[in-house]
Amino acid sequence: MTSENQSRHFQSDLPCVLVLKRPPSFVLFGDHFLESPKFQYLKAYESPLPLSQLLHTHARSVQAILSSGGAPVTAETICLLPRLGLVVTTSQGLDHIDLSECRRRGIAVAGAGTIFSSDCADSAVGLLIDVLRKISAANRYVKQGLWSSQVFYPLGYKLGGKRVGIVGLGSIGTEVAKRLDAFGCSISYHSRSKKPLEPYKFYPNVVELAANCDALIICCALTGETHHLISKEVLSALGKDGVIVNIARGPIIDEKELVRCLVKGEIRGAGLDVFEHEPDVPVELFALDNVVMTPHCAVHTMESFEELRKL
Amino acid sequence: MTSENQSRHFQSDLPCVLVLKRPPSFVLFGDHFLESPKFQYLKAYESPLPLSQLLHTHARSVQAILSSGGAPVTAETICLLPRLGLVVTTSQGLDHIDLSECRRRGIAVAGAGTIFSSDCADSAVGLLIDVLRKISAANRYVKQGLWSSQVFYPLGYKLGGKRVGIVGLGSIGTEVAKRLDAFGCSISYHSRSKKPLEPYKFYPNVVELAANCDALIICCALTGETHHLISKEVLSALGKDGVIVNIARGPIIDEKELVRCLVKGEIRGAGLDVFEHEPDVPVELFALDNVVMTPHCAVHTMESFEELRKL
Repeated sequence: MTSENQSRHFQSDLPCVLVLKRPPSFVLFGDHFLESPKFQYLKAYESPLPLSQLLHTHARSVQAILSSGGAPVTAETICLLPRLGLVVTTSQGLDHIDLSECRRRGIAVAGAGTIFSSDCADSAVGLLIDVLRKISAANRYVKQGLWSSQVFYPLGYKLGGKRVGIVGLGSIGTEVAKRLDAFGCSISYHSRSKKPLEPYKFYPNVVELAANCDALIICCALTGETHHLISKEVLSALGKDGVIVNIARGPIIDEKELVRCLVKGEIRGAGLDVFEHEPDVPVELFALDNVVMTPHCAVHTMESFEELRKL
Repeated sequence: MTSENQSRHFQSDLPCVLVLKRPPSFVLFGDHFLESPKFQYLKAYESPLPLSQLLHTHARSVQAILSSGGAPVTAETICLLPRLGLVVTTSQGLDHIDLSECRRRGIAVAGAGTIFSSDCADSAVGLLIDVLRKISAANRYVKQGLWSSQVFYPLGYKLGGKRVGIVGLGSIGTEVAKRLDAFGCSISYHSRSKKPLEPYKFYPNVVELAANCDALIICCALTGETHHLISKEVLSALGKDGVIVNIARGPIIDEKELVRCLVKGEIRGAGLDVFEHEPDVPVELFALDNVVMTPHCAVHTMESFEELRKL
């Protein structure tokens, strides 16, 4: 739809929802995925106009923003929209939204909530098993026809009995804990505050958590405080027998340090669904069998998108 | 050690343990792995003599056999050893041992028991998550540098809510059920008989189980009755949205049929640790992203071998 078409379209009385960037669900299922007779879309990514000019044109129509992880909702954008009352995001995280500006203006913010929590938790456990038991590497070994020519495939490590530390015991972290409990892992966690209802051991300090764990699973939100929370010091406390899994947000880990530790064998392995500069991935990790990487798809299943649509 | 050396060696009074084939634990950790001052080994794989001749020579010394999955303990071998009283295997399965001949002769048979059960169950769950969530395929996609060049990685499928059928609810099957329960799967099973203490739904017929499940996990022992138990009919009942995982023994599945179903898309995917003619793997599966294969290593972790040694 061209900008001219959109302008004509917006003469109707329906509330207008600004879409900054085509969200994954549109890419996968078409733009009709979240359509409704109750509102109309203003698709910024289809307009030839610069964003500020587009927003000026439609300043008084836009009442809501539909956002996804890839497109930040900045204070600047918010300022241009005096009637904005709601920001909805299709992502689990809210880190791309200027929450303090929303709070100041009294704009409601709605995320996908816990729809994605179980898929995220499944991914975290899948990545942990894959790294410890070397499933992806073994799959490659078999598919390259090496089994019949080589004596024995290198051993993996047992999951049962491992001390797993969960960083961020929110809806995802709790689901991860519940699953790993069934594998006989011993669970502890670090969070902003102790959760009195949870049976797991709480560490107020993430370095201390790492020092007492065989694996760390990063499940917290990305905020000013959690940026590079997993620092050189934390990785070094985790140590050379430790494994790290990140299904939260890339910048929570100091990626440069993580790459250095993996390349030098200072930690045992990593399962990574998220990276600091997506879709760019450190090329140093491409050749490492002890690193399993997925393209920020921990939340993406056929079924979760269907639930999102319903929401 | 040569045969001559061995003969000389056997003049001592220590009980003699016949080892037919170098077990994986010897390959990995050296022949001293299971050594003990209480017995001595007769290593058939190091002798230049044909097996029958070697056994004739030592017929009256051998009191026990240490066996592993790769070397069958046949009635013929047993007949040559009049003092044989014990067959110990380092494997979980006993299908390579002629159990009826042992029974007839009153020879005790000892397996690794449940040492490997939890590792096997972890592998089964890992393979299921990998197939559904496409972890190995995603890892390859990222490591080939395709993420930044392509729009979106194909979606996987949710594990939560899936109806999982366990074929063989023994020590491994029970561990698998416990784990998948925590993922929100709905568990049912097929076994020789109903287990009144288990809370899961029992199907006396495996075709019926398959027809009512989204995934089948093969956990039973290989016996005359379970050979090709997973037939064309079972696979067809499982259907095109169904996934199969085998961490038990290859010949339980009619592999030719399985390959045909996978190639034609008649089932959704497979996670296979075992094959009908190991180490030969059907080459038709090498190119399929929905098939994840590991080289019969579901039981193999550093920690499980250490437990085996202690046993």
